[in-house]
Amino acid sequence: MLAEIITIGDEILIGQTVDTNSAWLGHHLNEYGVEVIQITSINDKKENIVAALQAAEKRADVILITGGLGPTKDDITKKVLAEYFNAQLVTDQGALENIKDIFHRRGREVLQVNVDQALVPDNCEVILNTKGTAPGMSFEQNGKLYVSMPGVPYEMKAMMENVVFGKLNARGDNYSIVHHTITVVGVPESHLSEKLTSLEDNLPSHIKLAYLPHLNLVRLRLSAKSTQHTEIELNEQIKDYFNTIKSTIGNVWFEGDKNLPELVGDMLKEHHHTVGTCESCSGGYIAHCITSITGSSVYYKGSLLTYAYETKVAIADISQDVLNEVGAVSEEVCTAMAQNAQTKLEVDYCIATTGIAGPGGGTADKPVGLVYIGLATPEGGVIIKRCEFHGTREQIIHRTTYTALDMLRKELSTPKTATGG
Amino acid sequence: MLAEIITIGDEILIGQTVDTNSAWLGHHLNEYGVEVIQITSINDKKENIVAALQAAEKRADVILITGGLGPTKDDITKKVLAEYFNAQLVTDQGALENIKDIFHRRGREVLQVNVDQALVPDNCEVILNTKGTAPGMSFEQNGKLYVSMPGVPYEMKAMMENVVFGKLNARGDNYSIVHHTITVVGVPESHLSEKLTSLEDNLPSHIKLAYLPHLNLVRLRLSAKSTQHTEIELNEQIKDYFNTIKSTIGNVWFEGDKNLPELVGDMLKEHHHTVGTCESCSGGYIAHCITSITGSSVYYKGSLLTYAYETKVAIADISQDVLNEVGAVSEEVCTAMAQNAQTKLEVDYCIATTGIAGPGGGTADKPVGLVYIGLATPEGGVIIKRCEFHGTREQIIHRTTYTALDMLRKELSTPKTATGG
Repeated sequence: MLAEIITIGDEILIGQTVDTNSAWLGHHLNEYGVEVIQITSINDKKENIVAALQAAEKRADVILITGGLGPTKDDITKKVLAEYFNAQLVTDQGALENIKDIFHRRGREVLQVNVDQALVPDNCEVILNTKGTAPGMSFEQNGKLYVSMPGVPYEMKAMMENVVFGKLNARGDNYSIVHHTITVVGVPESHLSEKLTSLEDNLPSHIKLAYLPHLNLVRLRLSAKSTQHTEIELNEQIKDYFNTIKSTIGNVWFEGDKNLPELVGDMLKEHHHTVGTCESCSGGYIAHCITSITGSSVYYKGSLLTYAYETKVAIADISQDVLNEVGAVSEEVCTAMAQNAQTKLEVDYCIATTGIAGPGGGTADKPVGLVYIGLATPEGGVIIKRCEFHGTREQIIHRTTYTALDMLRKELSTPKTATGG
Repeated sequence: MLAEIITIGDEILIGQTVDTNSAWLGHHLNEYGVEVIQITSINDKKENIVAALQAAEKRADVILITGGLGPTKDDITKKVLAEYFNAQLVTDQGALENIKDIFHRRGREVLQVNVDQALVPDNCEVILNTKGTAPGMSFEQNGKLYVSMPGVPYEMKAMMENVVFGKLNARGDNYSIVHHTITVVGVPESHLSEKLTSLEDNLPSHIKLAYLPHLNLVRLRLSAKSTQHTEIELNEQIKDYFNTIKSTIGNVWFEGDKNLPELVGDMLKEHHHTVGTCESCSGGYIAHCITSITGSSVYYKGSLLTYAYETKVAIADISQDVLNEVGAVSEEVCTAMAQNAQTKLEVDYCIATTGIAGPGGGTADKPVGLVYIGLATPEGGVIIKRCEFHGTREQIIHRTTYTALDMLRKELSTPKTATGG
């Protein structure tokens, strides 16, 4: 089944709103086996709405329309739909009760513009808006389904979940669809693709491999869609291909499409380990990524953020002599930062970073992008990685952070020999 | 001038990526007086790309295409464009040098797939990619301009800023266009709009006021577009309206649309002041925002990031008795955090945060969203603000950060009486 999404309203076209609705719809429709073939964003002009509907119904079986249902003058979607489907606007009693209810609960007067929101084309099926005032509408014409919903994300989502997904299921093809994703850390897309060429060339036509790069992660997704195989069979097939992929690329991946901070957090919780940080060039971004995860206070204790030279001495006890001798961006200082902060913060693992995020501050021996990352472990040692990152200040901060979190991931996924004591 | 944006690639249609590129383009094109009439998102199939181009050129003067230029097999945009514009693919030496440079700097081998990225249709104008490997391309046909750019946001943005906006300006209509923006901190859009109703109602038709809310900032932009007035006249008119706006809303704004961290950084540099942080609930996000600004090492010294209870005692010398008595989320603890960190970090100003970012951890007296923000000043006192924020964990972290930075902005913009000594 093919779907097209049409969003109506200026706010997306002038960049005032990012179109998160379509992303949500695309993601969920895909899971229901509905393929979105186009997303079309247009303004509130009648001729553009009509042209978009006419173009969409040539391509798609299902047309999902969001936006343009508000109470203000520029919201004309409902009138255009009534005309398009040769209908009269009539008051829907259920929608009117819903509107009155909402206004009474808020202690506000119901204005005429609000009452008018209960007007709907007389040949549509009304979809109750459980989260707001504007009713949704669905139409059937020439075997195609048209659904019009408000642009407010939680109102639209509630209508999809309560009503529309059920409608789509009832019309569904008999495909089995299976997706599975692994996430690869620190390998460029082109290198991955080079390694996986022969696997890709030999995939059967019902299985597709997608590369989804984001910062220094690449998500690899295998999707299988077939009327010939059961879901169990497709799962088995995908598992086999992933086993080949994993043995081809080595230990640079983790299962699923979690964020790296979330994955590392889960691993720390599982082993009842704690972590702290001693950041310099990453400037608090590692702490921010870790603490963005709900429940991170269980395993994250804090940071000595030693951005300035003198702060490294004052709060992380880095020796002034060592700083003078080898400089702040050095293996020695990184090692001491990781160890001293591990002790002061009383944590099992401690991540330290020191480097030159740029764009200024580089020299011939210590160019912009040179970063030392240290990981102090409960066994007492410090793992040090010397990196030369490229890119903007923002990219160097991101790459430092993701490389550091991946060092922790690798360390946590390495089986430890039990020690006595 | 009318523009259409076409995004190519599965990732938007299946909801794996939110289309922030189009929002950025829509926003900036609008400022250049270019109206975006449609955004079309399609997959990588040749027939869909061709159909989208054919439909777009009927509606628009400028067609901006993003995505589909990666090195992998599913990226076919370049081949389709070559065919569409009756061209042969040839190697562009500039693009090839750029690719080799990037790979050499990263110390990685240049693979055939990378070399192939330098192939371009022989009748396009190549746009150098200053941030990545895939070159951009522009074509002229029947008076229409077509520009194809990578989907990676910072690569696309650099091409727009370095080359494409200039091209659009050169094709522009003979309008004078002037935009000016001020940024308002901490006032909801609806409250602002209420205060500015009568001003808005009396604006002449060639001047428009836009509200651009982002987190707890609202950018107010006045845009004047006219064939009847010079740019100098439009600037004068906008200045007058802004004077009225500023006197209506009070000291809650700053000039321009800088980021708050950038603005605060400029103020600190100007007065040769330093700042440090002692973050709990904001988890390093204040430090990250400050250190994202180039040159922040001049004024930012570091942080005691005391996320855990015991870390507040261990590294910020918060008294265990006070913690037991009034809890970590309290005015007393916030004050002590700001003062102790100010001393330890040897800074003029020190920001402290302690609160409940949620979604768990709230109680009846101390609900999720309760945050104390402290600002220790060089005069010796600590300014404390008690906030009750609403929203998700992410929103509470952001609001805490922006409120804290705005406290610092206000303090830095208050004239000080010179003291002796």
